[in-house]
Amino acid sequence: MDFTLNILGTASALPTVNRFPSAQVLNIRGRLFLIDCGEGTQIQMRKQHLSIMKLDTVFLSHLHGDHVFGIFGLLSTMSMLGRTSPFHIYAPAAFGKVLADFLGSFGDGFKFEPVHHTVKVSSPQLVFETRSMEVTAFPLHHRIETYGYLFREKTPMKNVHKSAIEKYGLSLSEIGTLKRGEDVTRVDGSGKTTVISNHEAAYQPYVPRSFAYCSDTAPFPELAEWVKGVDLLYHETTFPCGMEKMAAITGHSTTVQAAECAAAAHVGKLIVGHYSSRYPDASFFLDEVRKVFPEAELAREGMVLELPLSEMKDNAYICR
Amino acid sequence: MDFTLNILGTASALPTVNRFPSAQVLNIRGRLFLIDCGEGTQIQMRKQHLSIMKLDTVFLSHLHGDHVFGIFGLLSTMSMLGRTSPFHIYAPAAFGKVLADFLGSFGDGFKFEPVHHTVKVSSPQLVFETRSMEVTAFPLHHRIETYGYLFREKTPMKNVHKSAIEKYGLSLSEIGTLKRGEDVTRVDGSGKTTVISNHEAAYQPYVPRSFAYCSDTAPFPELAEWVKGVDLLYHETTFPCGMEKMAAITGHSTTVQAAECAAAAHVGKLIVGHYSSRYPDASFFLDEVRKVFPEAELAREGMVLELPLSEMKDNAYICR
Repeated sequence: MDFTLNILGTASALPTVNRFPSAQVLNIRGRLFLIDCGEGTQIQMRKQHLSIMKLDTVFLSHLHGDHVFGIFGLLSTMSMLGRTSPFHIYAPAAFGKVLADFLGSFGDGFKFEPVHHTVKVSSPQLVFETRSMEVTAFPLHHRIETYGYLFREKTPMKNVHKSAIEKYGLSLSEIGTLKRGEDVTRVDGSGKTTVISNHEAAYQPYVPRSFAYCSDTAPFPELAEWVKGVDLLYHETTFPCGMEKMAAITGHSTTVQAAECAAAAHVGKLIVGHYSSRYPDASFFLDEVRKVFPEAELAREGMVLELPLSEMKDNAYICR
Repeated sequence: MDFTLNILGTASALPTVNRFPSAQVLNIRGRLFLIDCGEGTQIQMRKQHLSIMKLDTVFLSHLHGDHVFGIFGLLSTMSMLGRTSPFHIYAPAAFGKVLADFLGSFGDGFKFEPVHHTVKVSSPQLVFETRSMEVTAFPLHHRIETYGYLFREKTPMKNVHKSAIEKYGLSLSEIGTLKRGEDVTRVDGSGKTTVISNHEAAYQPYVPRSFAYCSDTAPFPELAEWVKGVDLLYHETTFPCGMEKMAAITGHSTTVQAAECAAAAHVGKLIVGHYSSRYPDASFFLDEVRKVFPEAELAREGMVLELPLSEMKDNAYICR
């Protein structure tokens, strides 16, 4: 059950020799979600052996070119590869015109529909869900309308211990009750009530995993609250420490500001990227970040981060 | 005096792990001309140390995405780098809407003007010139309106042999006459006429160089005539020999068809590219091409082809 982040691009506005513009692919249980789509995304996907045809949804943070100019080539390639199923694009309202313009000039022969879903929220709000996961959008503080996205597995249905089934001779209906997280209450012929506690007989099979994507943004107090406790946080780090003024002017964050957000949010791990082209070698960013939040890595093209499934231990049933 | 072709991309419609979409940069005496602009052009230019800010003109063959989707990122980067001088885009009429749409959504803050020059010709026609070179556009046979471009140095002003200046005691005016390619006629006091022949006293300092770009096109008889005698011909070769039917359906050429054009046109050298993604390894294309036209190479990303300046020898003056 994958929960894997693939880094396709770490550049900010200006790509460099080694850096592509922003794009990431999040694989949740084999379903691929594209997050931002800078120029060259389709090329980077091929390099990382990520199937373009398996993509069905993209989340765009904002309409600066370095986050969207790859969408045109990607859609065209999907068309040429014979796609017929819709492709869903979550993006600010202004993307509607961009998509209509694109299809007007280049959409001849498209046999699939690129569907634009307008994202417009002023606080965290659910924008997408499947049976097992959901995506919440939240506003970021950039020069134009910009959103972050939080991907979270849903709390899974509980499993019932085999030993409990045997011990209590649980019926299918009772097992269903326990799976939903409820206690089972039995009333025998004499009116005596027995309770089989959910805590004893059932367990949550795994800890739901989460990833939050924050690019591009100046720091602001609510952000840490909105991404609180995520297992993995991607936070932009356009500038190093000492460049706070430039960061503020351009609506970006420094190493320390990104790390402070991660620390305040008590995230599991921080990954930073979106490096300014002023720093062809951004390796010194890492020390600055780790001084504030040690569990941190620098994003780089081709990097793959896996969040393994971890079993719940706190209420594991022990058969007595 | 450079005349250098840089290959940025050799893919056809679908990029592969190793191939970027179509784009080339022709450096004529330090002035850089971009020819087509597939996705990733700006990244490829950086890799090849070609200055984006030195570009002032691009020639787009047609409006299929693999030849134009890099223009958006390129223009945005120029803006971010502070460009103020116009950027000239020679392209079919339909590019006008594409550019207007792009500027409407992404052109905020542009301090330079991207100027669209409509190319619409039914036979070879001059579309661009400087003091020392010119560009002729000619129609190709593809699925949509498509043009090839022929870049040619102008015939240079002649040089006058120093020995001739001494021998005849040539005046500035007479040197000017010889530089323009005319004979000098002297009439002495007695009415006697002496002619100093241009052939004897002057020489063309170098052979004007030429490059023709043909992508994408099915073969057609006039093409060889239109690119006749060019020093370097780039001709698309989407398919190998045996795929003539597919090539015809898609408006493309095979290895042999490209080579036949080069042979019929008596070009100096042929370079082929625009390989179908069906052939991750297109090295076998070379044998097929060379069987028909031996002076041929396969284009590859990062390739640099130089056309050195060669002196005229046929009318070299020998001082007697």
